Amino acid sequence: MQVWKDYQAQHKDRFLNELLELLRIPSVSADSRHNEDTRRCAEAVKQRLVEAGSEKVEVCPTAGHPIVYGEKIIDPSLPTVLVYGHYDVQPPDPLDLWTSPPFEPVIKDGKIFARGACDDKGQFFMHVKAFETMMQTNTLPCNVKFMIEGEEEVGSNNLGIFLNDNKDRLKADVVLISDTSMISLDTPSIDTGLRGLAYMEVEVTGPNRDLHSGVYGGAVANPATILAKMIASLHDENNHVTIPGFYDGVQELSAAERENLNKAPFDEAEYKKDLGVDELWGEKGYTTIERTGIRPTLEVNGIWGGYTGEGAKTVLPSKAFAKISMRLVPNQDWVKISDLFKAHFEKIAPKSVKIKVTAHHGGSPYVTPTDHLAFKAASQAITATFGKEPIPVRGGGSIPIVALFEKVLGLKTVLMGFGLDSDNLHSPNEKYELANFYKGIETIPYFHKFFAEGSKK
Amino acid sequence: MQVWKDYQAQHKDRFLNELLELLRIPSVSADSRHNEDTRRCAEAVKQRLVEAGSEKVEVCPTAGHPIVYGEKIIDPSLPTVLVYGHYDVQPPDPLDLWTSPPFEPVIKDGKIFARGACDDKGQFFMHVKAFETMMQTNTLPCNVKFMIEGEEEVGSNNLGIFLNDNKDRLKADVVLISDTSMISLDTPSIDTGLRGLAYMEVEVTGPNRDLHSGVYGGAVANPATILAKMIASLHDENNHVTIPGFYDGVQELSAAERENLNKAPFDEAEYKKDLGVDELWGEKGYTTIERTGIRPTLEVNGIWGGYTGEGAKTVLPSKAFAKISMRLVPNQDWVKISDLFKAHFEKIAPKSVKIKVTAHHGGSPYVTPTDHLAFKAASQAITATFGKEPIPVRGGGSIPIVALFEKVLGLKTVLMGFGLDSDNLHSPNEKYELANFYKGIETIPYFHKFFAEGSKK
Repeated sequence: MQVWKDYQAQHKDRFLNELLELLRIPSVSADSRHNEDTRRCAEAVKQRLVEAGSEKVEVCPTAGHPIVYGEKIIDPSLPTVLVYGHYDVQPPDPLDLWTSPPFEPVIKDGKIFARGACDDKGQFFMHVKAFETMMQTNTLPCNVKFMIEGEEEVGSNNLGIFLNDNKDRLKADVVLISDTSMISLDTPSIDTGLRGLAYMEVEVTGPNRDLHSGVYGGAVANPATILAKMIASLHDENNHVTIPGFYDGVQELSAAERENLNKAPFDEAEYKKDLGVDELWGEKGYTTIERTGIRPTLEVNGIWGGYTGEGAKTVLPSKAFAKISMRLVPNQDWVKISDLFKAHFEKIAPKSVKIKVTAHHGGSPYVTPTDHLAFKAASQAITATFGKEPIPVRGGGSIPIVALFEKVLGLKTVLMGFGLDSDNLHSPNEKYELANFYKGIETIPYFHKFFAEGSKK
Repeated sequence: MQVWKDYQAQHKDRFLNELLELLRIPSVSADSRHNEDTRRCAEAVKQRLVEAGSEKVEVCPTAGHPIVYGEKIIDPSLPTVLVYGHYDVQPPDPLDLWTSPPFEPVIKDGKIFARGACDDKGQFFMHVKAFETMMQTNTLPCNVKFMIEGEEEVGSNNLGIFLNDNKDRLKADVVLISDTSMISLDTPSIDTGLRGLAYMEVEVTGPNRDLHSGVYGGAVANPATILAKMIASLHDENNHVTIPGFYDGVQELSAAERENLNKAPFDEAEYKKDLGVDELWGEKGYTTIERTGIRPTLEVNGIWGGYTGEGAKTVLPSKAFAKISMRLVPNQDWVKISDLFKAHFEKIAPKSVKIKVTAHHGGSPYVTPTDHLAFKAASQAITATFGKEPIPVRGGGSIPIVALFEKVLGLKTVLMGFGLDSDNLHSPNEKYELANFYKGIETIPYFHKFFAEGSKK
């Protein structure tokens, strides 16, 4: 609508500057040294919600990082949209690979470079500005509630408790999230599904102290070598995961569904070039789109042990560690998968070492029904501003809380993401395209409009 | 001799305090942040040599850390003993496992706790004090030359050059080193052989940047997973090293030699208890004594890649690294083995990753002839002060320069070590027993006495 266009054109620069301010706060939820920054970020989000016209805005304490809540109820009889986002970000390391400091945002070639630029500060903030647009132009067509949390990057451990304790306050008709990506501005898409996650940490202990690798080498099990052998055994020669029961209940798609899925534009040469790899890797019998969308995976997120400093140290380490996470698909249960992993990892360990397996966190996979009113509204909104109907795709990432919303609040979720796969989420030089940022702010009010209209029928 | 006993009894405490001063200098050769400390340590060693009565003492610069030289020529016609030692130490990490700061030596239960207490400050310093004893009691029976270097823990890269440039200055009849251990004070022993070393570092690169393990997981080779598979493949199910040609030319001992070797006292239960392991590990078909003495081995000294910090980070890392070293036995050549490793590691790498292999340093294995005059002198000296003839054993560690002495100076080496395997060399809480320290100072003059007398015959 013209009034939205005009308002947004007029406040374009302020919208951006407000985002940059948020990006300057290093709200790294995984690192306790940043607890104060994370708290400060929550207060900043509260401030923004108040300024945008939200009411009953509150920084709600949890056992971990706080959740920011705000709402605008214009008429209880109208439908209500619950907007979810997260203000916490991934750790920035490895720092030396950033071309500019992660928490000193810079704009280059129409891109905002900063940790959290896309995941998720840049994206949830679009909703705040879209909401402001509708408030300032008196065009808000429905009730809106905001719930912006601070623990998404560490597993949203306290969100479930918050949902349970606030069922009434959070009453709504649908959850709207922008924390995923689309194929491109020319080829808009909407995620219809997300993979679940089971994140484990393993500790392998050999001798009770670091040993001289000359005096003891060859006679005592080296935990780094044993860990390598154990990790190596987790994939077979076809890159299937070898954990017994891992694939039980995995939803196999029909030939038609797979064909439809593979219709999404994908240029393997371009993909390889972008990643700088000569050859792709993955589960035999599936395409890259399927491997990242509808198949479960197991990845080593981190591994360490022994001497990792400068130069040479002839040590036989006492301990070796790894962080290993699995992406899950319908209908895998993350708790069951975590248990299967633990049991298997302990079982394959030789007597010469001791094993400790800890489950960090997890979440269940989720699929959005494409015939849901809210999904249609999102599709119409994107069509209205992009001039093209979005392609439904399966996202490879995980937003564990989406399954939680359905379980605790009985709400479906629409994943209207405006990021790009090339935004370096969780990597150095994370970015968010200015064009996507503004396009999102332009599109979101249409979602509310179409959702409200659709609900009337 | 009584004069030695008296002198040493009288200066006991000063000997110890002088050692503690040396131990307070963090001369970590592998860490460039300690270059100044290492330099300072060389100056301190020079000072001690001068005080002990050594002449022409000099801190000789090299391309790396300096070498301290000193000598006492009482009569060119008498035999000359070249004493070698090193004043550099291993890095102290992991620091949190030390019960007292590594460079603030403390004496507890008759033990000196500090990095370098045994390896090698405590041991080379015994020679300085033994030399002082003979000088002060006018009983020095032969010429003595000292060469104390600062790069032993990083591969003695500049020692070869120094030997070549100083052949005349270093002219001697034998090299005497205390940088190894004996079985115990009740069961004295002398190392007759040392293993060689080839120390490699490998870098495995997957994608050109850290990736989101959800968006890309399952479709792109994970360098940590690939590295694990590659390391796992370096040992077969019998823990033989799988690198083609690795065992070529390995000297197989006769049944009699092996039987003799296994006569050394070894209590497996005690060994396992000390290390806190339920089961030993090693090459099939060999005893623990053989695995650590006469067999070549391959150990992972360090491994790292991806996110290793607090909490969870769902990253698919761009790179993974490992430090891998091999212990060599006669007649393996460390340069050839390094090349074999590099070629093999590059060969087994899948196309989905890129590999970089760097050889850190190495050294050849060495065996001391037990019929050598100097070996006999060492044996007699130990018998004189311990009241027991020492057992000849094969040491598992490496002092690469021993082979170098033979090659460049044409000198045999006697390894008269007074450490214990339980001294936590290269580990937290490194220690050296006061009893061993004083016993060494007491024993060394006898070596010079018997070596000088034997040379006359």
